[in-house]
Amino acid sequence: MTTGVRRRLGVEERRQQLIGVALELFSRRSPDEVSIDEIASAAGISRPLVYHYFPGKLSLYEAALQRAADDLAARFVEPHEGPLGARLLRVMGRYFDFVDEHGPGFSALMRGGPAVPAGGTYAMSTVSTTNALIDSVRQAAYVQILSHLGVTDPPARLELVVRSWISLAESTALIWLDGRRIPRAELESQLVHDFAALASVSAAYDEEMGALLRRVFKEEPADGPFADLAGRLLTLAT
Amino acid sequence: MTTGVRRRLGVEERRQQLIGVALELFSRRSPDEVSIDEIASAAGISRPLVYHYFPGKLSLYEAALQRAADDLAARFVEPHEGPLGARLLRVMGRYFDFVDEHGPGFSALMRGGPAVPAGGTYAMSTVSTTNALIDSVRQAAYVQILSHLGVTDPPARLELVVRSWISLAESTALIWLDGRRIPRAELESQLVHDFAALASVSAAYDEEMGALLRRVFKEEPADGPFADLAGRLLTLAT
Repeated sequence: MTTGVRRRLGVEERRQQLIGVALELFSRRSPDEVSIDEIASAAGISRPLVYHYFPGKLSLYEAALQRAADDLAARFVEPHEGPLGARLLRVMGRYFDFVDEHGPGFSALMRGGPAVPAGGTYAMSTVSTTNALIDSVRQAAYVQILSHLGVTDPPARLELVVRSWISLAESTALIWLDGRRIPRAELESQLVHDFAALASVSAAYDEEMGALLRRVFKEEPADGPFADLAGRLLTLAT
Repeated sequence: MTTGVRRRLGVEERRQQLIGVALELFSRRSPDEVSIDEIASAAGISRPLVYHYFPGKLSLYEAALQRAADDLAARFVEPHEGPLGARLLRVMGRYFDFVDEHGPGFSALMRGGPAVPAGGTYAMSTVSTTNALIDSVRQAAYVQILSHLGVTDPPARLELVVRSWISLAESTALIWLDGRRIPRAELESQLVHDFAALASVSAAYDEEMGALLRRVFKEEPADGPFADLAGRLLTLAT
């Protein structure tokens, strides 16, 4: 299980290496099943040396989570070019890449916090830290979507649509991970359509949302995902 | 702050009274701000007597949460009569009643678990207990919806639509609680439409879902919420 790394690393380099090794282990199995011994072994160093860089498994878990959060937030960044539906579809592809890479760790984290310590208790600070990280990723997604919609001061109904859609994307990913019974490409495309559908429901009852949606949809090409959905819904309704 | 109750109560009666008092306090403020002294005072008994019935605040919190979970699950039960959209709308009304009554406690619970103990640590068992209770309520909602759809062996895509819609209802309620900037009646109706919209997106790309949706929608009256939405969406699209 050792990586064979034997050369001497600088302190920060060693910390970063340990975070990477730990993140990989925390991603592949539920974090509470991963021991410090295993992390030490995978990093090719001794257990006491791990403790030299991180006071305990919790601090290493938090550092790994921070790296994962930065990684995920970066995947929401998309050039402001081309049709909106196609941009959102590319972001969904990178989102599901992330979920795919970090499956068990992502599930454990999102289903009720980090089941990390074996000692029977959680540090309050860890619960706060993980919740703050999850919120920061949601906020990064929210800010990105608003910027693509060209909105700086969102009305309450738009904020609701965007934030509740982000939570829909989370639950869709979690349900997908539980058995992977639906092809992920279908879910990526479905979430783009879900965004249009939730926004349309809001727009159907609110003129401000209606105007915003008409402005956005008018830029969409006839062969894009939004237009495709509209056509299929019309078929379904008749 | 005392209720003036002075007559002697039986053990189970006293436990139930304490659970009721605690649930009301845990509902009105974030549970970590509620002390045993306050619960004792509101119940009109001494602090040691509270400990006679419950070993600590955590066990009282868990009992209060169990009662709230039973209460919420019961609100999903709706007679199998009349159009589906109207049934779902009545359930949404009772759901928002619950969210309204238990606002701060509901928020604290759903935003990262019970921030109860002042001692700096969580008991693992409490985290498991609260997560299991939340899951049991979600499952109760899921089972109710399937029964109204007349489905016993749901295909994966229907399960995804129903479960992800339940999570959408949760996030919508949480966002509503944060400032109450949108009238709740509008959100109750919007969530009924969101259900139809998410199901339609799935049906637009899957024949099995399409057949199921056509069967359900064909029973809907022309003046029901589903038909109303369809008409408005057509207006928006043209």
